[in-house]
Amino acid sequence: MRRLQIDPALVERYLTDLATYGAWGETGVVRLVYSPEWVGAMRQLAAWFDEAGLQVRRDAVGNLWGRLEGSAGGPAIVSGSHVDSQRPGGRYDGALGVIGALVALRTLREQLGRPKHPIEVVAFCEEESSRFPAANFWGSRAVIGAIANGEADVLQGYDGQTIAAAMRSVGLDPAQIPTAARQDIDTFIELHIEQGPVLEQAGRPVGVVTAITGLRHYLVEVRGRSDHAGAMPMDLRLDPMAGAAEIISAVIDTAHSRGRPAVTTCGRIEATPNFPAIVPEWVRFTVDVRHPVPEALAELCAHHEAIFQTVATRRGLGIRWQVTLNQSPCALDPGTVQVIAEAARDLSVPTMFLHSGAGHDSQVMARRFKVGMIFVQSKDGRSHTPAEFTALEHAVAGIETLAAALHRLAY
Amino acid sequence: MRRLQIDPALVERYLTDLATYGAWGETGVVRLVYSPEWVGAMRQLAAWFDEAGLQVRRDAVGNLWGRLEGSAGGPAIVSGSHVDSQRPGGRYDGALGVIGALVALRTLREQLGRPKHPIEVVAFCEEESSRFPAANFWGSRAVIGAIANGEADVLQGYDGQTIAAAMRSVGLDPAQIPTAARQDIDTFIELHIEQGPVLEQAGRPVGVVTAITGLRHYLVEVRGRSDHAGAMPMDLRLDPMAGAAEIISAVIDTAHSRGRPAVTTCGRIEATPNFPAIVPEWVRFTVDVRHPVPEALAELCAHHEAIFQTVATRRGLGIRWQVTLNQSPCALDPGTVQVIAEAARDLSVPTMFLHSGAGHDSQVMARRFKVGMIFVQSKDGRSHTPAEFTALEHAVAGIETLAAALHRLAY
Repeated sequence: MRRLQIDPALVERYLTDLATYGAWGETGVVRLVYSPEWVGAMRQLAAWFDEAGLQVRRDAVGNLWGRLEGSAGGPAIVSGSHVDSQRPGGRYDGALGVIGALVALRTLREQLGRPKHPIEVVAFCEEESSRFPAANFWGSRAVIGAIANGEADVLQGYDGQTIAAAMRSVGLDPAQIPTAARQDIDTFIELHIEQGPVLEQAGRPVGVVTAITGLRHYLVEVRGRSDHAGAMPMDLRLDPMAGAAEIISAVIDTAHSRGRPAVTTCGRIEATPNFPAIVPEWVRFTVDVRHPVPEALAELCAHHEAIFQTVATRRGLGIRWQVTLNQSPCALDPGTVQVIAEAARDLSVPTMFLHSGAGHDSQVMARRFKVGMIFVQSKDGRSHTPAEFTALEHAVAGIETLAAALHRLAY
Repeated sequence: MRRLQIDPALVERYLTDLATYGAWGETGVVRLVYSPEWVGAMRQLAAWFDEAGLQVRRDAVGNLWGRLEGSAGGPAIVSGSHVDSQRPGGRYDGALGVIGALVALRTLREQLGRPKHPIEVVAFCEEESSRFPAANFWGSRAVIGAIANGEADVLQGYDGQTIAAAMRSVGLDPAQIPTAARQDIDTFIELHIEQGPVLEQAGRPVGVVTAITGLRHYLVEVRGRSDHAGAMPMDLRLDPMAGAAEIISAVIDTAHSRGRPAVTTCGRIEATPNFPAIVPEWVRFTVDVRHPVPEALAELCAHHEAIFQTVATRRGLGIRWQVTLNQSPCALDPGTVQVIAEAARDLSVPTMFLHSGAGHDSQVMARRFKVGMIFVQSKDGRSHTPAEFTALEHAVAGIETLAAALHRLAY
């Protein structure tokens, strides 16, 4: 086949225009699922899907699909990602995967016509858990039929609203969630920014992902006793800030000393009453633990939990924790990994194999379908920040690889 | 003289009624200076001052005064405290000192008639710095003429509003602040809850304060780099949460290991963007350091600042700190201390000498006038919390001591 011509200007326009929905500062976005900003972005994507000659459909949880029918029918080859963001996040995380799939499908259709098997682009409604901390890949879970009956009514956002109420506010009926499940998908390929520095340090524009890290999120609450900061002697205090600081230091140091690829992050913290002259009553913080090897992840988590308990017990503090997210490490489909690697090789795009340190919809889709992932370079490894940046040439190299892989599977 | 009869029921009624202004939960209050809750409390006090036969006057910053004229004139003997609170605080901190002075003056007037020298009760407008972190005893500073020209226009609250704007919102004119300064005060005596466990552990209802601790408040900001919690290896991170946790642990441990009376508290913390899956960009926290000995306070602060810089430098993090409050240790007037101790002895109220671990308007008044302080027991040493509690019998013993001391000075 002749080489597909991906239009860099089209990619750049889509990226720039989509970033206006929920724009935050110069380069960031805040686009939470079912928010007005998210609704605007999804409407814009639907218009672009339609312009590209795709059949547009919104499913029961709000995932957006664009379909290119195949002459021989059969299960679909799907590519896409999500458009919800961190608060604030950058304009590439998720968005590039949706735009990349859209550009790939549009280019395939325009330059090679109708495929043999149907190809679809999907914009999943939710991936970041940035509004509903336990949403846990809401959109892709709906597609594999893994949202529990009644879950929408109990799953709460940071503001206390249920996801069911948020769905209704944008015209979606939680009772219809089961209708979003699909059986007719053969393969899912997700294009995504790396979000780390590995490709950049290796000088490769594109990476072929072999596995996705496992991760566990804890919400830890340390309870002490609120006291006057001047009148209560140190030796009589039950200071939860002292306990929280010791725990945070210890879990971060533990992951650091384990070496790559172990990572532990305490990204969120709050104290009550949160006032300079008062010993806090309680301190709450999150612990995010990741490792791509199941046994190593379990060991790291067990070690962290031992730290939680040991520090609290020694200091006479109350402690409790809940696991708000728990994702097993996920090996991707070897055949699909091979198709992507060969597509890149034929295009002479320099690649390497690597694992993903971030969670993705791909790991959910992999529970039901064949799945592969394509990474493109992130400048300085930055992500989940407005400073996130991927050079256009790297994005285009990734989309070329994606389009060639889709071509191998669907034409 | 015959023993003054302090009415416990009156004390209890005043305390209970005042606590309805800004009530928080069952036992707490949130009453920030110049807020509607504070305005309500001050109006109620003005009515009670008037009922007690005192001349009522509000000064330019909103301090409320009630005066009992003396037959021989001369400078006034003053007693009082403040009615603003922590957020949330208890119903005794400050409030008991205003009510105690009111009850003492009312009882003296009713049972002994007109004094020789004028006696006044004062409710200072602001003491806690709970709305304006750098207010630094706004009310008593106005009385000694220590509010700088233009300060009201630059002093900002946590919500960004200036104290000048907040004053105007309750009908006060910041241009008139200099008129609140007084020269005609001889002695100031403040009755206050201890806010610590020393009197309770010693089994004394009342304490005679000899000195007030020095204290310094720092606002510390540690800056790192926001990164993805999964994709950025630990060894490449600039994690301000790791740095903040190490600093918080170290300064608290330092004060603890110094032993009593050194205290260090980190009561307030915030991170940005404050999200589980993102390494924070920065973490800000407060450090409250106290010691009643000037040299020891300076040494402790210098040690803390060395920790700030050492940890940040070793971790490659940015750090900056500002001193938001800086109060030197304050020795109270020996003659006034003696008068209070003798008054308690004559009443057979068991007392002890102690220092105050908390800052008070008394330390500001002591820059211009003779000052003494009377402490009463705090249950379990609790304060700056809705759990704060002082038994009525201890409050009454303190007010009896106060009334007897005022009698010695003014009759």
